[in-house]
Amino acid sequence: MDKILDEAEMKNVCLAVLGDPLFATTHLTLILECRKRNISYKVIHNTSIISILMNSFGLHPYKFGKIATIVRKSGTPATTVYFTLYENLVKKLHTIFLLEYDIESKEGVKPNDAFNILKEAEEVYKLGAFSSETFVIVACRVHREDEKIYMGRVKELLEIDFGQPPYSLIIPSELHFMEREALSVLFGLEKRNEINNSKMIKKKVEYLVYKYVGNTRKALEDARKRLPRKEFDSLFENVECYLDDAIRFLNLGEENLAMLCVGYAEGLLDALRFQGILELKW
Amino acid sequence: MDKILDEAEMKNVCLAVLGDPLFATTHLTLILECRKRNISYKVIHNTSIISILMNSFGLHPYKFGKIATIVRKSGTPATTVYFTLYENLVKKLHTIFLLEYDIESKEGVKPNDAFNILKEAEEVYKLGAFSSETFVIVACRVHREDEKIYMGRVKELLEIDFGQPPYSLIIPSELHFMEREALSVLFGLEKRNEINNSKMIKKKVEYLVYKYVGNTRKALEDARKRLPRKEFDSLFENVECYLDDAIRFLNLGEENLAMLCVGYAEGLLDALRFQGILELKW
Repeated sequence: MDKILDEAEMKNVCLAVLGDPLFATTHLTLILECRKRNISYKVIHNTSIISILMNSFGLHPYKFGKIATIVRKSGTPATTVYFTLYENLVKKLHTIFLLEYDIESKEGVKPNDAFNILKEAEEVYKLGAFSSETFVIVACRVHREDEKIYMGRVKELLEIDFGQPPYSLIIPSELHFMEREALSVLFGLEKRNEINNSKMIKKKVEYLVYKYVGNTRKALEDARKRLPRKEFDSLFENVECYLDDAIRFLNLGEENLAMLCVGYAEGLLDALRFQGILELKW
Repeated sequence: MDKILDEAEMKNVCLAVLGDPLFATTHLTLILECRKRNISYKVIHNTSIISILMNSFGLHPYKFGKIATIVRKSGTPATTVYFTLYENLVKKLHTIFLLEYDIESKEGVKPNDAFNILKEAEEVYKLGAFSSETFVIVACRVHREDEKIYMGRVKELLEIDFGQPPYSLIIPSELHFMEREALSVLFGLEKRNEINNSKMIKKKVEYLVYKYVGNTRKALEDARKRLPRKEFDSLFENVECYLDDAIRFLNLGEENLAMLCVGYAEGLLDALRFQGILELKW
């Protein structure tokens, strides 16, 4: 870098790069150094992989969420990568994954590696963000003469030879019918299958609400048998109402209120325990 | 569009557009029609406003969230626009807003209009996503000869003449020190002030938890005075413990559990009401 800067102090230097010139931190550092050394510069922006991926498949540019790069497997599960996908799918946003490729060592992440990395993270976190049923677009050598695009469910893509890098993935969320139409016309995607990767997403809160509602219903049934006295009728009725409300709020997407209701119902019932009226097993 | 397509059936037709050729739905429709009419085509991608905004300011490209366009004021508050910003700030992601500009009518959204639209939505939703203290980057006529970039807190930008459209805004989230450094070097941003638009964000759940905990504490105090009997000691102690737990879980970011705890504490106390033991006012 110093050589470039030294030369740039004497004469015009031009640096041609692939993609947007400032996407890589190295090039940003270069212009920061120019500023510090008072070297004037001009950046001519170019299209970038992000821009092309957002715009080439008929997916709505406004429906893309946070992007991430998948790097070669380390010892730990790919937490950031997995949760980037998870959070985007929860919000019904499409995810762009760039697959690492080191041009010097010629090593990097292949599409199948990326599938394995995501699959392993799914096995750890179990939130339904990725499976062999997930619909994926694999973009190979984008905007080059030998560009090649593959798409399908992960299980249909496992045997494909994707050719040379670089690769990127798009894992779309629920598709608008216009997006579906574009994929059909542009890439011959069959229309018969529904595509909605957000559908399998398990929200942690759903799991919790159903678990607690189930436990409380059982405890309520037990309590009603053992305390068939009229003075507790109103209490038991309220427990039941609030459990129903919890499910209702959950279905309305009001997760906080769902948790509040199920907690309240549990509390109503458990008060009998703290008063020494009933020994409840949860 | 038909004219272009008809001509393209006979000879080579070239369509030059500003920005990425497929960002606009119209151009996507054009290539879909080409496919249907069996006209071969080639798309040459260009840099786009999104790509430039993500890459020009030293902000990390991986920290951008969903983007949105701010359109001219309609009767309703700008819900989508506001919540795009809100959700991004909650997740500590930067937000790109494109400001609508109709090249034919020469009408559109000016930066000050956008500030007002966001301010009005803030007054409705009160979630701390936008205020006169919000730090904003206003990018005017990006990548043109007369490009001009302004940045500062909204209150510092109100008197500025931004010149001709088009305009875009970036509302960054919490800045990494490298991002901060880049803004200082590239745009002379003073380093003394902290920039963190995510800091003022009020999570709805925080508001709810504090409200319910406050109400329940008051009711508990009341109940203790009016029922100073030993048989309720254990119940009251548990109410207190679970209220403390609610705050503790909230601080740990375990929002669902915080709601569960506060609901449970309320339920414990309210059981006395349903048993006819105590008339509680909430």
